[in-house]
Amino acid sequence: MQHRKILLTENDIPDHWYNIVADMPNKPLPPLHPGTKEPIGPEALAPLFPMELIKQEVSADKWVSIPDPVRDVYTLWRPTPLYRAYGLEKALDTPARIYYKYEGLSPAGSHKPNTAVPQAYYNKMEGVKRITTETGAGQWGSALSFACNHFGIECEVYMVKISYEQKPYRKFMMNTWGATVHSSPTDHTNAGRQILAGDPNSPGSLGIAISEAMERAATDDNTKYALGSVLNHVLMHQTIIGLEAVKQMEMAGEMPDVVVAPFGGGSNFAGIAFPFLRLNFDEGKTIRCVASEPSSCPKLTRGVFRYDFGDTVGMTPLLPMYTLGHNFVPAPIHAGGLRYHGAGVIVSQLLKDQLIEARAHDQLECFEAGVAFAKAEGIIPAPEASHALATVFAEAQAAKEEGKPRTILFNLCGHGHFDLKAYDDYFSGRLVKHEVTSADIENSLAMLDTPLI
Amino acid sequence: MQHRKILLTENDIPDHWYNIVADMPNKPLPPLHPGTKEPIGPEALAPLFPMELIKQEVSADKWVSIPDPVRDVYTLWRPTPLYRAYGLEKALDTPARIYYKYEGLSPAGSHKPNTAVPQAYYNKMEGVKRITTETGAGQWGSALSFACNHFGIECEVYMVKISYEQKPYRKFMMNTWGATVHSSPTDHTNAGRQILAGDPNSPGSLGIAISEAMERAATDDNTKYALGSVLNHVLMHQTIIGLEAVKQMEMAGEMPDVVVAPFGGGSNFAGIAFPFLRLNFDEGKTIRCVASEPSSCPKLTRGVFRYDFGDTVGMTPLLPMYTLGHNFVPAPIHAGGLRYHGAGVIVSQLLKDQLIEARAHDQLECFEAGVAFAKAEGIIPAPEASHALATVFAEAQAAKEEGKPRTILFNLCGHGHFDLKAYDDYFSGRLVKHEVTSADIENSLAMLDTPLI
Repeated sequence: MQHRKILLTENDIPDHWYNIVADMPNKPLPPLHPGTKEPIGPEALAPLFPMELIKQEVSADKWVSIPDPVRDVYTLWRPTPLYRAYGLEKALDTPARIYYKYEGLSPAGSHKPNTAVPQAYYNKMEGVKRITTETGAGQWGSALSFACNHFGIECEVYMVKISYEQKPYRKFMMNTWGATVHSSPTDHTNAGRQILAGDPNSPGSLGIAISEAMERAATDDNTKYALGSVLNHVLMHQTIIGLEAVKQMEMAGEMPDVVVAPFGGGSNFAGIAFPFLRLNFDEGKTIRCVASEPSSCPKLTRGVFRYDFGDTVGMTPLLPMYTLGHNFVPAPIHAGGLRYHGAGVIVSQLLKDQLIEARAHDQLECFEAGVAFAKAEGIIPAPEASHALATVFAEAQAAKEEGKPRTILFNLCGHGHFDLKAYDDYFSGRLVKHEVTSADIENSLAMLDTPLI
Repeated sequence: MQHRKILLTENDIPDHWYNIVADMPNKPLPPLHPGTKEPIGPEALAPLFPMELIKQEVSADKWVSIPDPVRDVYTLWRPTPLYRAYGLEKALDTPARIYYKYEGLSPAGSHKPNTAVPQAYYNKMEGVKRITTETGAGQWGSALSFACNHFGIECEVYMVKISYEQKPYRKFMMNTWGATVHSSPTDHTNAGRQILAGDPNSPGSLGIAISEAMERAATDDNTKYALGSVLNHVLMHQTIIGLEAVKQMEMAGEMPDVVVAPFGGGSNFAGIAFPFLRLNFDEGKTIRCVASEPSSCPKLTRGVFRYDFGDTVGMTPLLPMYTLGHNFVPAPIHAGGLRYHGAGVIVSQLLKDQLIEARAHDQLECFEAGVAFAKAEGIIPAPEASHALATVFAEAQAAKEEGKPRTILFNLCGHGHFDLKAYDDYFSGRLVKHEVTSADIENSLAMLDTPLI
């Protein structure tokens, strides 16, 4: 009997997160004030985030201690297993050795609770009564609902109206953990009322939901805001994935040649890749790290590196990022978690410095890979995870063509239990390729008047 | 940091199933021919099942070897974790120590693949090309789809029409693993055509779906049939749950005073309880085993012990079981897996002999327990699992009233990811208590002309 799983014990749960900023040859550029366009300091974030998270956001310490109460909640599902994908290797008839880290075992079904839990914890420690956030497809909203429930904090989620109506299961999940879920735009924020005045039937957007959640936090002393990706502290919390995976690969007796993860705002990719990049920095290893993005939203492979807003309406600080422009509207692909116009600051700098790679895949290619994976390994992957799979398939094919082994590790960031409608659309031929023309990208970028780098 | 999980390695996956028949003081009575009402032998089952499963069905061997290829598939998710429910103990403010075995980590999300995998394997070994089955809510159908895909067998699922239409996610899941799913009644079996002739808009029923699936298997040489509960071999395959749990409780340094599981046809309960009953038989322990059934379908607590049919139309052999009568129509509660009129033969005999206990709970009580569990432990339980939780809550309350510790173990048989609509119905006050009157039960039993015991 072959051993598929490499398991750690609860004692092996890392006691520090890894902060890659300490090792980056070029440090991230500072955020700029949205109005003055001058660099801003951490104090500008104080209305939105608790001080401990702001400290982490600007920290240059290489290791940041994980509080015991956070590790205690992690034990509800961590450490997560590392699988050797024997079934997939056989199905692909490849000499590549394929491993995956499975993050779908968390109560919310994805890697998102890895950061939701510490974010809720630090808010609790600073006496915050309520956290607001936005959610699209609902993965982040459910993760934060779960975490807030654990620490006894109210959670208020602004869910994009069209998802609220089309994907009720995620809403019910948030309700089960006690969260209040609003169909955004609402009539109880200025931002929402403004949108509704223009279009009472607005289907909402992530940009609008961000504006509503931020407004709520900025105007209530007991309320803070939480973000599920992009920011430095969020990426750092996710490194628990890769820190565990490094130990598990050591147990397997080898290191990956290439590490692959889906790419939305960056936390998924950072989570598994940064601890392996550390081995490149500290031990001179040459592990390739590849971010897999949708070809319908190709900021890493076809965007530009410049300052841009994090939201659609231009309220957030300006961040130095690979971006398609904050007015870019990605096609409605099923990997909702990857439909974001910009990349997190750290990942953008690493890509600029050619320390990581990126690759784009069409959703049809991704679903084909996802179905093949489900048949070979059992687990039905989330559409986001299938983007990593498409890269893994390409790497496995390259190994086959070269006739040489290659060790591949990827982040299976979540299950697809709430995405089965998308699988049905795929089987029924209702999914289409989404080609982004160069003109689409140029038009979106032409609208930017943000500072160049 | 407290340790929540007691984990085994893949080496610890049991290499034998436990067959409780060997230890029963009173052996199960024989099945009877539906027409002649004379005892039938194993050969009567040959059109439906492969010979190896028929041998297991009538085996008196105490231990039955698990084939290596089956153990190999088990490693996709087994061994499953045993959790100490610290969060729940705190929420209930009880001196009881509560443990749960979590079976929701299988690709299909419940304990059902534990038997689907060996069933598909033995069929494959005997050259079977296609397996048919019925499914209601879809847990069994998806488990069998997963297993058949693994061994390269076609899987044809007759899914009750009303579930097919109302619960499409489970259908899409089966499709992803390559199964064909029919909305039953269909027009390609005699049984289906007969129903449709009488009512072209028939919503279907489990009884009709069983008839269709059995007819298809009985009339095609390359096709066999598979059942997800009730039968002896199915219950035996599930003992892998309890065999692992016994090892894990030993690692925890204690044995349960009481073992609790939901009860539908018996495989869920048998899976966790039988290996602990073995300790009662072999080592003189006095572990209580409690089956938790819905009060809307109370065959164990309010049914009679007599011969009855396994299906609604009376095609199957007559089995000696606790039953409400095969014409009993349970209320449409959300724990679809527990809406079955009769109990498996072995469990019925054990209850008759007072070697196990049973307890009934209303669905409102179960959802209340399920939500409390989700808040305390993170995992959102399937409605079936919440029936066990209702019993656990009662046991924990009893311990509190006595002011004495009590060690409780229960089977958290699956997650509720596909049942979140039911949670929403609960939150919205749309769920009602389903009281079964004594007259309902008497009327159903009065229709029986099957042999008494």
